[in-house]
Amino acid sequence: MAQKDKIMNSNPYIKKIFTTPFPNSKKIYVKGSTDNIKVPMREITLTDTIGASNKKNQPICVYDTSGVYTDPKAQIDLHKGLDEIRTDWIKQRNDTEVLENFSSGFTNDRIRDKNLNEIEFKNLKKPRRAKLGRNVSQMHYAKKNIITPEMEYIAIRENCKWQQYKNEINQHKGNSFGANIPDVITAEFVRQEVAKGRAVIPSNINHPESEPMIIGRNFLVKINGNIGNSALGSSIEEEVEKMIWGIRWGADTIMDLSTGKNIHETREWIIRNSPVPIGTVPIYQALEKVGGIVEDLSWEVFRDTLIEQAEQGVDYFTIHAGVRLQYVPLTIDRTTGIVSRGGSIMAKWCLSKHQESFLYTHFEDICKIMKAYDICFSLGDGLRPGSIADANDKAQFSELETLGELTKIAWKHEVQTFIEGPGHVPMQLIKENMDKQLTECGEAPFYTLGPLTTDIAPGYDHITSAIGAAQIGWYGCAMLCYVTPKEHLGLPNRDDVKDGIIAYKIAAHAADLAKGHPGAQIRDNALSKARFEFRWEDQFNLSLDPDTAREYHDETMPKQAAKTSHFCSMCGPKFCSMKITQDIKKMDKKEIKQIKKIEIEMAKKSNEFLSNNSEIYSEN
Amino acid sequence: MAQKDKIMNSNPYIKKIFTTPFPNSKKIYVKGSTDNIKVPMREITLTDTIGASNKKNQPICVYDTSGVYTDPKAQIDLHKGLDEIRTDWIKQRNDTEVLENFSSGFTNDRIRDKNLNEIEFKNLKKPRRAKLGRNVSQMHYAKKNIITPEMEYIAIRENCKWQQYKNEINQHKGNSFGANIPDVITAEFVRQEVAKGRAVIPSNINHPESEPMIIGRNFLVKINGNIGNSALGSSIEEEVEKMIWGIRWGADTIMDLSTGKNIHETREWIIRNSPVPIGTVPIYQALEKVGGIVEDLSWEVFRDTLIEQAEQGVDYFTIHAGVRLQYVPLTIDRTTGIVSRGGSIMAKWCLSKHQESFLYTHFEDICKIMKAYDICFSLGDGLRPGSIADANDKAQFSELETLGELTKIAWKHEVQTFIEGPGHVPMQLIKENMDKQLTECGEAPFYTLGPLTTDIAPGYDHITSAIGAAQIGWYGCAMLCYVTPKEHLGLPNRDDVKDGIIAYKIAAHAADLAKGHPGAQIRDNALSKARFEFRWEDQFNLSLDPDTAREYHDETMPKQAAKTSHFCSMCGPKFCSMKITQDIKKMDKKEIKQIKKIEIEMAKKSNEFLSNNSEIYSEN
Repeated sequence: MAQKDKIMNSNPYIKKIFTTPFPNSKKIYVKGSTDNIKVPMREITLTDTIGASNKKNQPICVYDTSGVYTDPKAQIDLHKGLDEIRTDWIKQRNDTEVLENFSSGFTNDRIRDKNLNEIEFKNLKKPRRAKLGRNVSQMHYAKKNIITPEMEYIAIRENCKWQQYKNEINQHKGNSFGANIPDVITAEFVRQEVAKGRAVIPSNINHPESEPMIIGRNFLVKINGNIGNSALGSSIEEEVEKMIWGIRWGADTIMDLSTGKNIHETREWIIRNSPVPIGTVPIYQALEKVGGIVEDLSWEVFRDTLIEQAEQGVDYFTIHAGVRLQYVPLTIDRTTGIVSRGGSIMAKWCLSKHQESFLYTHFEDICKIMKAYDICFSLGDGLRPGSIADANDKAQFSELETLGELTKIAWKHEVQTFIEGPGHVPMQLIKENMDKQLTECGEAPFYTLGPLTTDIAPGYDHITSAIGAAQIGWYGCAMLCYVTPKEHLGLPNRDDVKDGIIAYKIAAHAADLAKGHPGAQIRDNALSKARFEFRWEDQFNLSLDPDTAREYHDETMPKQAAKTSHFCSMCGPKFCSMKITQDIKKMDKKEIKQIKKIEIEMAKKSNEFLSNNSEIYSEN
Repeated sequence: MAQKDKIMNSNPYIKKIFTTPFPNSKKIYVKGSTDNIKVPMREITLTDTIGASNKKNQPICVYDTSGVYTDPKAQIDLHKGLDEIRTDWIKQRNDTEVLENFSSGFTNDRIRDKNLNEIEFKNLKKPRRAKLGRNVSQMHYAKKNIITPEMEYIAIRENCKWQQYKNEINQHKGNSFGANIPDVITAEFVRQEVAKGRAVIPSNINHPESEPMIIGRNFLVKINGNIGNSALGSSIEEEVEKMIWGIRWGADTIMDLSTGKNIHETREWIIRNSPVPIGTVPIYQALEKVGGIVEDLSWEVFRDTLIEQAEQGVDYFTIHAGVRLQYVPLTIDRTTGIVSRGGSIMAKWCLSKHQESFLYTHFEDICKIMKAYDICFSLGDGLRPGSIADANDKAQFSELETLGELTKIAWKHEVQTFIEGPGHVPMQLIKENMDKQLTECGEAPFYTLGPLTTDIAPGYDHITSAIGAAQIGWYGCAMLCYVTPKEHLGLPNRDDVKDGIIAYKIAAHAADLAKGHPGAQIRDNALSKARFEFRWEDQFNLSLDPDTAREYHDETMPKQAAKTSHFCSMCGPKFCSMKITQDIKKMDKKEIKQIKKIEIEMAKKSNEFLSNNSEIYSEN
């Protein structure tokens, strides 16, 4: 088992590129009402403006998903896992119990299996579950008017300390298409949104290492990165690295979509070391358990898989319960049929048995499991369009209507729920899709894959889809599932993960700006000010990817002196437009006033000029 | 002079990567009403569908900007230049004359300068100009109800032979926001659009090598690629290569923005070898002629530069005539002042002289030059926003209003005109900008740089801007000026040019789909069908960049067998969703009917199930 060697040989195993703090950045922790609420942010320090009256440039705080990996003070040991920041909060609620043994037969088989000794995560913790009859979901607390520490943490986190700039920054008015974003996010606002089902806090009680975050239309737009091995390769180590790499660049959640070997152990390593919520598609593993024979899937195997994953700490489950038998024939004449793996598995199961999907018939049983661990539903779009041709068709929208029904059932159980969406959708159909989701699903958060706005660019689908993602984020989508350049072609490697994440951070941020999220423009303004003042290092450091920005600048102007030069390689020293504007700015205010007077005269003349010429020149 | 050596040593000098035809693609020429109208297209041949009733897959025609470089029958000789395909048409109009000498003093000085012998283009042609008092613009002919060969050529080109698929393809209805796109583009429609000023055909009579193309809201969205050296480097050879590389990947026009050495000679090499229209910003060269001293710029130097470039064959000039003295103070309090090079040059000139811009006061003189060679105005947006903060501000919109006035003056002279636009604009402000342009400029084509939808991602501005470009293209922008990953950081190399072009082909095509351009979805449909049928090679070949698609697939599945395998690396053989759907598709039609019956029963049961459960389950 090659991957074991790689993981076990060095302790703690972690490469420097995963832990190097960002340049001129400091990890800060903003305290909440109690000492154990410490919300991480990244503070980027800026240099002074030279030669202007206002010299100091305030540091800029940015939302930080990277966990303690970018905190130089933290001790990282992948074999031990991260510190549990939520355990005290969970205990204090006094509605859970620690189990002596895992409840899943499969889990216990894996633990007993001596052959797995080498790849298993040693520092296993006992699972926690709601006490009999209790509901431990954040939605349940919210509806009981309880503000949890998770909610307070999120309120602090979402604000990013942006209030301190409020009076200084100018920001364009947004168009949020009916969203309801307050000026300041309060813990009470978080509670209300969760109670209404408009936002979710994925926070399995068995993943106390996770730093609370929220997904909802009235909060910052989030992004998800997919990782996971397949039957064709990649090791546990590589997947853990991809997770840490993904959150470094900004993934708010990570989905582990493994379908290859050792799914259980891979997931354990990932969860124990992840400060962000982890999502899975349990049907993938269930299918592996029955040897890939769809017909052999059953509620019993699936149920055990849910419990297995619930007790490991998975924060949200994609459940394709909307793929009903009656919808399958709707896909027959599609250009690309069913492209969701989960969707096609369930479609095949329904057809071969001539039965309604067990995910649908057992939906309330699933709800009961979800609320005992506080796992969110990510209601899967098994019939999402896999091509522009199939966008917004009857199959897709029928399923969406069913997801709306299921949302209401989940809410009845006070289970947090969000809804997955496509896929491939041309721009003119994106808003219709978003609006239908809001209506059918009562504003439960929407979580879309892209959408890709054209099919013709395999190899560049991070771009075809970032175009759609930015738009749907603007229209109200709460979380954007990234697409990497390898989509449709192969499994993403670490570089692809980064390319996908950055493209989606761009889309999400463009959406925040367009919605008019309070404070969202602070970073843009700071970066543009730095650019205009030729503070090159500040420009790099404020960017989503300082490494690449610096590297590109170095390519044409490698010398250190170029980092302070008042021009750049595009124009050279003589022609620089920004240099010229700075010269203009330096002009005396009096001089400007004088020009304004001249202008009035000139405006008159100019009108004469225009009208005269209209006479003088005739057409040939 | 190093660049000379590189150009002269091999004859014809051209690397294989510039001329290799695209895989399974054939250059075809569609004949017009006369033998000398031969419109190039790329025909992509597809393999058969295996195991379906309809086995043959029709070849797909795509718009082809690559010129004869991808025609294996063509003789390429960069020293000779391309064949003149338009000379006969121009001669037949009998309204031009060939001059014995160049009209520009600067040009004649360069020709006499022995030091330049080594870098000059030897196969210089005598310049052509309108006979005294004649107007040779396509707009002039259009208004006289003349359908030129250029117009017929364009009609054939825009249709891409898509009519032959019309009855077979399904395509979503578009939303074109008031555009007026016909089902079939006729030469008469082209004429009408040019006559109305809603479209332009950049086609200097001194660039007879160019393959006619059109820029207008009711045609396919076009893209421009910028090249050009700067004071800090790059050779003539590199710039010619970038041009050929750019059109290979889809640039519809190329702007040569050189500001470094030997601008005149660099441009000559580019034009003589370019099958696409070439645009420039003449003020850059004018400024070089006066040693970079803005105050020394004058109408006389500028005029000579216009004529110099006109007689070389530049097809459109960016003229920043909208930067009026009175607008300059509006930029003082901006975050990023004036970021357009041309804009800042003119602003500084106006301020230092306390005079109105000579571009504005001499605008009708410029018109007279334009119509004598048929050069289009690209009215520059010298006050475009350089940051999100400055978007849609008074400076920008005041200039746009002036550009509207100038458009009307240009039209009075029957000079083809389009309008440049920003820049940096958050999504919620893009439509306002587009709509204002349409109103102010009477639907003259809009040509925007991006816009970038956020400032925070230097190194990825091809993506931040492709998001904005796709949207403004959808809303009515006729041509999108690409942005490369190096924007704000350095000069693009060949890889950056390709990345920028592909990102913009995506944006333009996404816009065509969203507008509902007839036939635009053919390529998407064909590619998705190939994908669904595991015709991997067809999928690669139909993509914008077959090389990268194939390379990515090879990374995880390198063997040739994988190119015919009915699964991919993402899921592996057992879990493939598309494989499962194909299994479903194979089911007997009778079986499906039977299921439909069962469904009706089940739907009833399901309703009972839902309503029953609503009773059974109560909240905790």
